Amino acid sequence: MTLWIAVDWGTTALRATLMAPGAIETRISDKGMNTLTRNAFEPTFLDLCGDWIDGPTRVIACGMVGARQGWAEAPYATVPAAPLGTGLTRVDAADPRLDIRIVPGLRQLAPHADVMRGEETQIAGILREIKDLDGVACLPGTHTKWAHVSAGEVVSFRTAMTGELFATICNHTVLRHSLTGDGWEEAPFLDAVSDALSRPETLTARLFELRAADLLHAQPAATARSILSGLLIGAELAATRPWWLGRDVVITGSSGTTRAYDAALRAQGVRPKLLPAEAMTLAGLTAAKDLP
Amino acid sequence: MTLWIAVDWGTTALRATLMAPGAIETRISDKGMNTLTRNAFEPTFLDLCGDWIDGPTRVIACGMVGARQGWAEAPYATVPAAPLGTGLTRVDAADPRLDIRIVPGLRQLAPHADVMRGEETQIAGILREIKDLDGVACLPGTHTKWAHVSAGEVVSFRTAMTGELFATICNHTVLRHSLTGDGWEEAPFLDAVSDALSRPETLTARLFELRAADLLHAQPAATARSILSGLLIGAELAATRPWWLGRDVVITGSSGTTRAYDAALRAQGVRPKLLPAEAMTLAGLTAAKDLP
Repeated sequence: MTLWIAVDWGTTALRATLMAPGAIETRISDKGMNTLTRNAFEPTFLDLCGDWIDGPTRVIACGMVGARQGWAEAPYATVPAAPLGTGLTRVDAADPRLDIRIVPGLRQLAPHADVMRGEETQIAGILREIKDLDGVACLPGTHTKWAHVSAGEVVSFRTAMTGELFATICNHTVLRHSLTGDGWEEAPFLDAVSDALSRPETLTARLFELRAADLLHAQPAATARSILSGLLIGAELAATRPWWLGRDVVITGSSGTTRAYDAALRAQGVRPKLLPAEAMTLAGLTAAKDLP
Repeated sequence: MTLWIAVDWGTTALRATLMAPGAIETRISDKGMNTLTRNAFEPTFLDLCGDWIDGPTRVIACGMVGARQGWAEAPYATVPAAPLGTGLTRVDAADPRLDIRIVPGLRQLAPHADVMRGEETQIAGILREIKDLDGVACLPGTHTKWAHVSAGEVVSFRTAMTGELFATICNHTVLRHSLTGDGWEEAPFLDAVSDALSRPETLTARLFELRAADLLHAQPAATARSILSGLLIGAELAATRPWWLGRDVVITGSSGTTRAYDAALRAQGVRPKLLPAEAMTLAGLTAAKDLP
């Protein structure tokens, strides 16, 4: 097989990469899983990638595409488990040239219920980079995942809704008037991380201060955004302290969020390794392609 | 003056009450302050209440109507201060029969920036009911206010965005799929209050469990809503512990939120007094009418 297609199909976006010897090309669509009914996945995929296909082609996909409302449900593997679980789920395609396989997500039943779809593939990619990782993978994003990884398996994991809370507060609460733009200031961010770590119980009360400081002191929006981000990431670090304290930590996320988590963790004395998210997804899908 | 009009004009709603001897009538409009430009306030008011007016009429208004973008800016009084501050702001009305006066809001400069508009009037109403109150007024709502009241003054106050966070999480995050309906279960609510009080740092991580427990265990939406409410109110009680621990507490809010705060505080050994919000607003506006 000299040509295959790596697919990261999430809730709001589809990213397909042609994996051919000497030629990698990526195409992106906004046709996320939440915009599609089941029979729309194959035509959507062929619309984006059809011209890449000139014979039998394997497609390896990860993300919400494997959810119950996705292209085909890829049942969760239950941790502790290898990040790619015990096997991929085949999709019956109408186009006979397509050999489509979806990576299962991971689920945790105890000590608390938790799920991931897509991040397990990034963890598989991280394990191709750091084969003997015995530590924690932090995957910041809309729903940040903290995964304890040891002996090639995900032992347990924890999700924090930090990214979605940040976006929702910026877009849908009264604070939106005080959080405009996309400015960033590291000093107030780190102060807020430290405050939230030492007094995590004050989070919901601290939020309205951002509005009052705008009204009474004309606090700049970039300062307020940085404080909000610091309060939320600080609260997350307070909740996940057992995950990062004294551990080897790998951060895999987009560049902006990775920088923020890296700065916050360094201020607590952690020295994370940084690995880029898209490359880890491709590495994980490559590992999945070679599964029996 | 035998007839006057009490007005509670907030961000999203206008509530006007005809205060005549032996006859109280209330009308409600969705023409909140955030839907109006400055010169639209008087016509909007007359549309709703014009037929009540047959001569010189005093109008006493509280709420966001006094904000910078309101009918007229009523400058904040700075705490410590009497809840109605040092005087009302007169509005120049085009209609010569109208004598319009707006209650100032309160602001706090230290130890943290904070503001209120509308709740100061409810506190003035509470002080007509409990003249010698030396304790704390808890006004739950979109932005819950905790005010330390002593010797007829608001000494300091603290805002928590609990109500707005609850609504925003229910309406705008992935949890909305797991939080449908309006069911309520007291036992999981109180468990979550207790959890959040004892481990407030886990809030952002606990949120995603509501989604996972739906996906993996089909947790009912009413249970999830009750847990979410308990986590947020518990976090607020953790942040405001010095405000209620060992204090006389008065709760003034709508019936649903008052019941939730009352149950949460009773579980911590507090025995709050409950006073209804609309009656306290009218009592406060009545106190304002008699100011020199």
